[in-house]
Amino acid sequence: MIFTEEYYILFDIVILLLLAKILEELVARFRQPPILGDLLAGVILGPTVLGIIKVGDNVKSIAWVGIVALIFFAGLETEIKEFKRHSKTGLLVGLGGIITCFTLGLVYGLSLGYDLSSSLFLATMLTPTSVSVTVETLIQLKTLHTRVGQVIVSAAVADDIYALFLFTLTYTVVSRGYFSVSELAHVSLGLVILALISYLMFRYSNLIASLMSRLKTVESLFTFTFIMGLSVATLSSFFRLSPIVGAFLTGLALSSMPGSQTVKDRLSIIMAILTPLFFCYAGVLLNPWEVLPKINLSTTASLIMGILLLGILGKIVGCGLTAKLLNLTWTESLSVGIGMIPRAGVELVIAVTGLTLGVITQEVYFSILILIYVSSLITPSLLKLTMYLKRK
Amino acid sequence: MIFTEEYYILFDIVILLLLAKILEELVARFRQPPILGDLLAGVILGPTVLGIIKVGDNVKSIAWVGIVALIFFAGLETEIKEFKRHSKTGLLVGLGGIITCFTLGLVYGLSLGYDLSSSLFLATMLTPTSVSVTVETLIQLKTLHTRVGQVIVSAAVADDIYALFLFTLTYTVVSRGYFSVSELAHVSLGLVILALISYLMFRYSNLIASLMSRLKTVESLFTFTFIMGLSVATLSSFFRLSPIVGAFLTGLALSSMPGSQTVKDRLSIIMAILTPLFFCYAGVLLNPWEVLPKINLSTTASLIMGILLLGILGKIVGCGLTAKLLNLTWTESLSVGIGMIPRAGVELVIAVTGLTLGVITQEVYFSILILIYVSSLITPSLLKLTMYLKRK
Repeated sequence: MIFTEEYYILFDIVILLLLAKILEELVARFRQPPILGDLLAGVILGPTVLGIIKVGDNVKSIAWVGIVALIFFAGLETEIKEFKRHSKTGLLVGLGGIITCFTLGLVYGLSLGYDLSSSLFLATMLTPTSVSVTVETLIQLKTLHTRVGQVIVSAAVADDIYALFLFTLTYTVVSRGYFSVSELAHVSLGLVILALISYLMFRYSNLIASLMSRLKTVESLFTFTFIMGLSVATLSSFFRLSPIVGAFLTGLALSSMPGSQTVKDRLSIIMAILTPLFFCYAGVLLNPWEVLPKINLSTTASLIMGILLLGILGKIVGCGLTAKLLNLTWTESLSVGIGMIPRAGVELVIAVTGLTLGVITQEVYFSILILIYVSSLITPSLLKLTMYLKRK
Repeated sequence: MIFTEEYYILFDIVILLLLAKILEELVARFRQPPILGDLLAGVILGPTVLGIIKVGDNVKSIAWVGIVALIFFAGLETEIKEFKRHSKTGLLVGLGGIITCFTLGLVYGLSLGYDLSSSLFLATMLTPTSVSVTVETLIQLKTLHTRVGQVIVSAAVADDIYALFLFTLTYTVVSRGYFSVSELAHVSLGLVILALISYLMFRYSNLIASLMSRLKTVESLFTFTFIMGLSVATLSSFFRLSPIVGAFLTGLALSSMPGSQTVKDRLSIIMAILTPLFFCYAGVLLNPWEVLPKINLSTTASLIMGILLLGILGKIVGCGLTAKLLNLTWTESLSVGIGMIPRAGVELVIAVTGLTLGVITQEVYFSILILIYVSSLITPSLLKLTMYLKRK
């Protein structure tokens, strides 16, 4: 039977979105973040389980707009003043986790016999913490306003920026296959231009907001600022930086403009429909059956265990010890370390990029997915436990 | 220079959206409906003028979600009591336009010396109305609720169903030389199932709203009702009906549920970003240069004029006179006739089918392209003009 083109397009979108939302609903009953439901929907409908959706081409563009919306929102949510006040401890705690995870990942990759590119990507993938998962967990535990909560949040936000820049660096070096000075200059030019644009947007954000509010098209402030986010995201991918760098910088630059709350409200509507499809898409991309006949299951099992251990212990030790050195108590430091465990969005963006570049294997991608599931699943209960210890 | 996949995806989306919004802003200064800006952006960036965006594959899926959102919104905006009161008129107005255009097309084809198959195809191509351009214009002019608006919407939706039956009939007769009962049975079965689902959604809309509001996911009422709209739209394209039919019926069925205003507010945010990309995509799809070298423009000129006249006057006279006979005023009837002018997707599908079957010539195909450009571009402004006349 031959169907129209729109049938195939709408079918993929509808079936992914429907299952994602049903699973979001289901995981919410177990107090788990919705992102798990989205990922599972992609894994179930993709080649891993049912194979109903094969390549995900029909959701690709929606997925990218969805992830730009999410990261743009995260930028808008970051208050520059608040961020500056809590930043010293947070910056160092975040850096401690990044350095520990990156070093462990690099050494692990090289010790497995991977080449430098693959090892760099593996190391980079282990570094970022998911702000949304962390904040959501802290809110659930009603500990967002404690010292531990404040340190975790600023560390997680700082961590996100470090990881983005680290990813940019790794991505550029790896995508060219060699360490190129001119390539680094190209990226540096991109970074300078992006920094300049961000500064100008920040400097004139009041003017931008007032001009855009006066336009005649519907929802002009929201649509034009979102188009700015999309444009700078596109510009950063023009310089081979990830689109999320541009999206985050635009959000950060416009975070204190008048009407930013209105823009965030509108973005959250876009995110309710479009962003789940990014994580669905990430799930659909996973195809273990393609490599399963070619791999040794026992080495893959040990790879999963290795990445799980490094990913979780790297954050607990790296962030926890830094927190202890900055005069937090042992239990507070343990809470901080555990609060930095969750992985989600950025790791997946890096992993998807790595797959497209061909520098990470399906085994590594699969291990990262396991890390995301496990880290997101264990954090709420572990954090609850350390918070209980602290109160005693 | 080789860019990442996300660069190409985001570039197409950003450049279309940016130009569309700038042109929306520009046409607003001349008191023209924004949709004109969206269509022009697609025509300018597509193969017709600049050729920066070639096939529009990267915006295709966003475009379809955008158009389902628009038509779902139109369904929600329609009050069932109002719709019932005007639907009989609408059904007859749609039929009046179909019969007039089909008859004129058949006579014109035969008078040009075309054989019966070619004349049948030409006649069928002139019949369908593209509801999306008119609905968008009516929403923007805030005249969807008027008698004219309600008659046009029901006529255009009915028109879609009539045209599909007619196309199925013409196609099977021309391509196989006999009348296929099973093809028509498939479409008829689809209509029965859609009617049944719509009735059930209408009957239990309060229950649906109360269940969905109680869910734990963010914006649950909005996301789940929108997914329902997308699902029924997909189902209608499964039966080869336009997704528009299913989207409209779902909106109509849920229009009186509690919280429908909330859903409409959320939808209008989605529509601000996604729907313009549908009309951009429609503009990008047109490629006159493919056909132009194959035809002699001066000998085709009279054919173009003939098809333009029949296509436009056929709807104005056929729908307008039917409306007048059903006791609308002369200006209301003129508005109805003009609102039924736009042609877009379905005509193109019929034209491409006709080309592959060899029953229509490149000249006829080119003329239909011109009809699509002209009808889409003139309708918003003409409709606004008649609405202004009516108010005087």
